[in-house]
Amino acid sequence: MKNYFVSKSRRLRGTPYTSRIEKQGVTAYTVYNHMLLPTKFEDSLEEAYHHLKNHVQVWDVSVQRQTEINGKDSAKLVQLITCRDLSKAKVGRCYYAPIIDNNAKLISDPVILKLAEDRWWISLSDSDLELFAKGLAIGKGYDVNVFEAKVDIFSVQGPKSFDLMKKVLGPKIGELKFFGFDYFEFGGAKHLIARSGWSKQGGFEVYMEHEKAGLALYDKLFEQGDEFNLKPGCPNLIERIESSLLSYGNDIDIGDNPLECGFDKYVNLDTNVEFLGKEELKKVKADGIKRKLMGVKIDADQIAVNSSINMYDKTKNLIGELRSGTYNPSFKQVIGIAMINEPYFNDSQEIVININGKDCTGKLCDLPFI
Amino acid sequence: MKNYFVSKSRRLRGTPYTSRIEKQGVTAYTVYNHMLLPTKFEDSLEEAYHHLKNHVQVWDVSVQRQTEINGKDSAKLVQLITCRDLSKAKVGRCYYAPIIDNNAKLISDPVILKLAEDRWWISLSDSDLELFAKGLAIGKGYDVNVFEAKVDIFSVQGPKSFDLMKKVLGPKIGELKFFGFDYFEFGGAKHLIARSGWSKQGGFEVYMEHEKAGLALYDKLFEQGDEFNLKPGCPNLIERIESSLLSYGNDIDIGDNPLECGFDKYVNLDTNVEFLGKEELKKVKADGIKRKLMGVKIDADQIAVNSSINMYDKTKNLIGELRSGTYNPSFKQVIGIAMINEPYFNDSQEIVININGKDCTGKLCDLPFI
Repeated sequence: MKNYFVSKSRRLRGTPYTSRIEKQGVTAYTVYNHMLLPTKFEDSLEEAYHHLKNHVQVWDVSVQRQTEINGKDSAKLVQLITCRDLSKAKVGRCYYAPIIDNNAKLISDPVILKLAEDRWWISLSDSDLELFAKGLAIGKGYDVNVFEAKVDIFSVQGPKSFDLMKKVLGPKIGELKFFGFDYFEFGGAKHLIARSGWSKQGGFEVYMEHEKAGLALYDKLFEQGDEFNLKPGCPNLIERIESSLLSYGNDIDIGDNPLECGFDKYVNLDTNVEFLGKEELKKVKADGIKRKLMGVKIDADQIAVNSSINMYDKTKNLIGELRSGTYNPSFKQVIGIAMINEPYFNDSQEIVININGKDCTGKLCDLPFI
Repeated sequence: MKNYFVSKSRRLRGTPYTSRIEKQGVTAYTVYNHMLLPTKFEDSLEEAYHHLKNHVQVWDVSVQRQTEINGKDSAKLVQLITCRDLSKAKVGRCYYAPIIDNNAKLISDPVILKLAEDRWWISLSDSDLELFAKGLAIGKGYDVNVFEAKVDIFSVQGPKSFDLMKKVLGPKIGELKFFGFDYFEFGGAKHLIARSGWSKQGGFEVYMEHEKAGLALYDKLFEQGDEFNLKPGCPNLIERIESSLLSYGNDIDIGDNPLECGFDKYVNLDTNVEFLGKEELKKVKADGIKRKLMGVKIDADQIAVNSSINMYDKTKNLIGELRSGTYNPSFKQVIGIAMINEPYFNDSQEIVININGKDCTGKLCDLPFI
């Protein structure tokens, strides 16, 4: 497979960490929310996967932009755009929340942080949700401010992230509960740090608002990280698929509704809260879904998924499309995430998929993989 | 300057032409509207510039996605989001139109095509304008449909584009007026073709809706193109800056208002039409702008603008920021586009800018350059 260069410009914004990660050996980027997201350092994808599962990495994930919604009607607007009931949401907590439009189609699957009763951050997946929220707010005449907050996240991920963060920031950070956040002082500024991150190996996300102190913290972690075998890293395709962490634009998109994507526990139809697409979702639920997001295990040792790849049953019926996938050295197979049509979405279904001109066989499974 | 690879995935969509341009020698991409936009073929940027100005190129510009707005209230919604008076817009015409929010900040600078009295395409610059239009429509309760139409544009640009297109499609295409469009038959389908494109060298954009027939047209152009020295190409940084074609995200962004960007003739404050940000713009106009987009000519033979670069006067006062720029072999200088602060925005202002550690001098000029 030929490699292509990325052409940089002001339109593909760098981050406060770009000069650092380029010294630290980044070799490839993707673009996410109009910004550069590192995808590879000098280690191979597989080496980085093993390292992430055993040690600790610091990631530049500034691309997780924060749409801030504040003001008198902010809670109303935030609830309007998600099918998850946030009426009991607590300050200091993160909420994974599907964002849908009036046809119940997915616009984003962000994490929402409740900063105060009238102040929220929506930690974006790859779409300009700010424009949707702003359009709605103008149309409804809501009393809110909607804008991109100046926040550049770096993430500390891996089993040794706890010891590293305690060493640098003190023991209190060890008390954070999963998806909780609090403020921690370093370098003369307070930093919002959440126990979260886009891996299942444990860790933290530093919502960096104070650049000088934040970069000092970034540098301090690398100064203190040797004993934990700290390396620079980035979200890892092998790990994120194995952990069934969905990627908006890859696994799920604006053509899908949240019930097809398995977000049932975040689809709160039996509450009094009003949100866009509620009636449509009730109808989907009553009728039953016609497609379902599933895992797939394929007897192959490599794949590159750059667009949807059709999958068939043994008798050549189209059963769905593979949306992401990669070879997994623990499973010793290709594993991936696929949208499967009725009536094929059950975990005994065998599949056939053509990889580089060769028909390979495999089997569906429910998500998560582990 | 080190080069970095781009990591492909389903989230960075390819186009119907991707397999063709990869055979035709593309070497680099940027990402635009979540899609791959070629930025370089085997020729150097400067070779491609001279070729574009003298011959003809075919460009994959599928990234110019079409947000379709149709239905009873479509004209009202389209007018609501632009400060350009479209009340007399005609079917069969393209309109360059700044899109602004309620604070008169730029969200996009697309070309709008009026397909019918109740059907419009907005040919996007790099932001999810669909989400803004959808949010507004829901909030206002407008009777419209807002969605991404299945359209993948390829562009035929350069002085010989007229002869090439007449050879393949017949003489009638030669009668299209600038920014006019009509339907032309090829391969058993009708194709919307506009006399437009993101160069000032003349040409056409084929709004390809019928993939099989459209790809046959793409291939036919290359079959017939030898006598016109046809090559595959892409928007050219040297030519587009020389021609003062603005790039949203590079030269202009959500921090700017349209009067700062020199869009005065598209800011129609003296009409009865209602649009977002109208009162704010009246205030900006009354008070006078505090910043202005200008050209700059710099005594240097190279530059890479990957983010804003500050510019100073001779006594070290900050006067503004360079947002794009490149060496231009016709001007034999670097020329670029910059946002300049009050009171410095006049065409006799001298500037100092640091390029790769060296202070270079230059001078502001009004846009366009030529």
